[in-house]
Amino acid sequence: MSALLVSDPSNIYYLTGYNAWSFYTPQFLFVPSAGDMILFMRAMDANGASRTAWLPRENVFGYPEEFVQRPTMHPFDWVSGKLRDLGLVAGAVGGTVGLELDSYFFSPKAYLSLVAALPEWDFVDSVELVNWVRVIKSPAEIELMRAAAQISAGAMTAAIENVRVGARQCDVAAEISKAQISGTTEFGGDYPAIVPMMPTGEAADTPHLTWSEERFTEDQAVVVELAGVYKRYHVPLARTLMLGRPSPDVQKVVGAVGEGIHAVLDAIRPGVQARELSEVWNAALAKRGLAKPSRIGYSIGIGYPPDWGERTVSLRAEDETVLQENMTFHLICGMWMDNYGYELSEPFRVSADGVETFTSLPRDLIQIGNR
Amino acid sequence: MSALLVSDPSNIYYLTGYNAWSFYTPQFLFVPSAGDMILFMRAMDANGASRTAWLPRENVFGYPEEFVQRPTMHPFDWVSGKLRDLGLVAGAVGGTVGLELDSYFFSPKAYLSLVAALPEWDFVDSVELVNWVRVIKSPAEIELMRAAAQISAGAMTAAIENVRVGARQCDVAAEISKAQISGTTEFGGDYPAIVPMMPTGEAADTPHLTWSEERFTEDQAVVVELAGVYKRYHVPLARTLMLGRPSPDVQKVVGAVGEGIHAVLDAIRPGVQARELSEVWNAALAKRGLAKPSRIGYSIGIGYPPDWGERTVSLRAEDETVLQENMTFHLICGMWMDNYGYELSEPFRVSADGVETFTSLPRDLIQIGNR
Repeated sequence: MSALLVSDPSNIYYLTGYNAWSFYTPQFLFVPSAGDMILFMRAMDANGASRTAWLPRENVFGYPEEFVQRPTMHPFDWVSGKLRDLGLVAGAVGGTVGLELDSYFFSPKAYLSLVAALPEWDFVDSVELVNWVRVIKSPAEIELMRAAAQISAGAMTAAIENVRVGARQCDVAAEISKAQISGTTEFGGDYPAIVPMMPTGEAADTPHLTWSEERFTEDQAVVVELAGVYKRYHVPLARTLMLGRPSPDVQKVVGAVGEGIHAVLDAIRPGVQARELSEVWNAALAKRGLAKPSRIGYSIGIGYPPDWGERTVSLRAEDETVLQENMTFHLICGMWMDNYGYELSEPFRVSADGVETFTSLPRDLIQIGNR
Repeated sequence: MSALLVSDPSNIYYLTGYNAWSFYTPQFLFVPSAGDMILFMRAMDANGASRTAWLPRENVFGYPEEFVQRPTMHPFDWVSGKLRDLGLVAGAVGGTVGLELDSYFFSPKAYLSLVAALPEWDFVDSVELVNWVRVIKSPAEIELMRAAAQISAGAMTAAIENVRVGARQCDVAAEISKAQISGTTEFGGDYPAIVPMMPTGEAADTPHLTWSEERFTEDQAVVVELAGVYKRYHVPLARTLMLGRPSPDVQKVVGAVGEGIHAVLDAIRPGVQARELSEVWNAALAKRGLAKPSRIGYSIGIGYPPDWGERTVSLRAEDETVLQENMTFHLICGMWMDNYGYELSEPFRVSADGVETFTSLPRDLIQIGNR
């Protein structure tokens, strides 16, 4: 590729430090194989991009407001013209140019605008190239994640302290969110790429429900999945909180998941393939007569809505990625059964000779007493 | 169009009630011109879709986990095959099929998968068809928005009560978020499509910055833009909070914006064109020697990240939409100057003979005393 057009906000942040909620209008970072990076975005955002990005103001171009959300035109019509004016289409850069074809916030209309306006370029899918560069973290990134992990633990503690029979789901979500955003006295919190998820009672058989204004009732299991975030680095965490007595079905799953997650943690070290962790998990579950069809984890780091995963390595049968030191994952053991569910997770770093878990909460069903 | 494939989570919610944070993996609602709607999504989400959607379980299909986030395949490869198996490609439905080509969460890779797998279909852009249906609200929707407006006012009050010299930005954002999600005793809050935005001090010259862990200092202006949300219906609100004395430059803008917003509110009634409100605004600003290049408002209602606007009507010179009763807007007067900024907004409904403003906070700069 002679250039790459980067649309994923996480990748733009990784490459430039640019951080704002501007991704709801089209934008991309032009990354040539040689020469300066250039950021293209809405004019009102371009004015202030250097408040967070280290790019100089002259490397940021804003398209005019009249291109925003119009049926008959697209901002990239203007951006393509600007690239041409800058001599970057036929000049130094030409030939094969990479696009993030499966990135969030890059629409088919945006893609078709570029294809029509830049016939000189042969577009190819970058296949998450920058995301893959992000997979192994630097020591500085690991420090940010350790800070995020403190915030995760605080947010889960807020959930544990506030879930009780009679409380509204929204009031518990509010306390979790406050803990996430406030952070710790040392590390101010940032917004998570996904809001707290809280499938409750029978609805805990499905993973991505948020909250309602209903009140918690006796004998409900409450699945809480959240992330602590520091400077956009995410450390997710899931626990299941039990109001009253778990049913025998729930107890069986709790036992199997507990054995499974510890077997997986014991197996982590550099040189192991992602699929091997999945095999360890499946073997542990099979002993108890259970199975899980979905992956048990994914690579984590920088995140923007709608996802805190990096969309690269998954811990599943099909993934032969070899684990290396300073890869970071969310090991998430979610069991979505008929009319009940259980989630337990552990975020971790692959260390030189094994594993560093980011949090130290008990890895078990959390019993909530009546208060 | 013989069918429409709906990807926008807000449109899927509008048509089916489906509400979960599952849009980070590909999904769409198949809407034929005659016959049942069918929801296609990840298997783990399909299992529980009927927890929120009114669609029966048999009208929801889940693609297998092995299609999720893989470089060499896309979930819609599987979905296209399922549409074919169901007899919906060559059968009752055929010919021209609409796509939401500029929807969030519909990637070029997803689009290319559909084009390759369904050559019988001639795809066209729906040009936000469902979004346009949403523009005029029913009385039931207006009630939801009035509830959301109470939450907006509560969240802005939380900002006013917590911004002070020495407070960390993140701690104020945490209190705003808590107020948004907790809601009122009557109406439990929901998550906003955009997190609280809080450009502060010199950085208030750019609109979409969130918060940092920095502390507020003397003489900073803090722009707060947030939304109250009830059952996914958004009522956004912006105010500027002043720590200490406003500079003469800020005072000039405050005066002009105050006059402009009241002139616009006075001009709202059914039959007026969107562009006319923009003209009223520009005339008021021009009297004070100021101008604003961007739109002064947009249609609001259901929202999911990353945007609470409906991407239909904008209050700007190019938009000739005729206002009708029960259209709802966020009138947002944002002035992003060099090294300072000012925002003042009012969410409103077009009433039978004028305007209903959703909130009643003073429309002025909010002076924060030292506490």
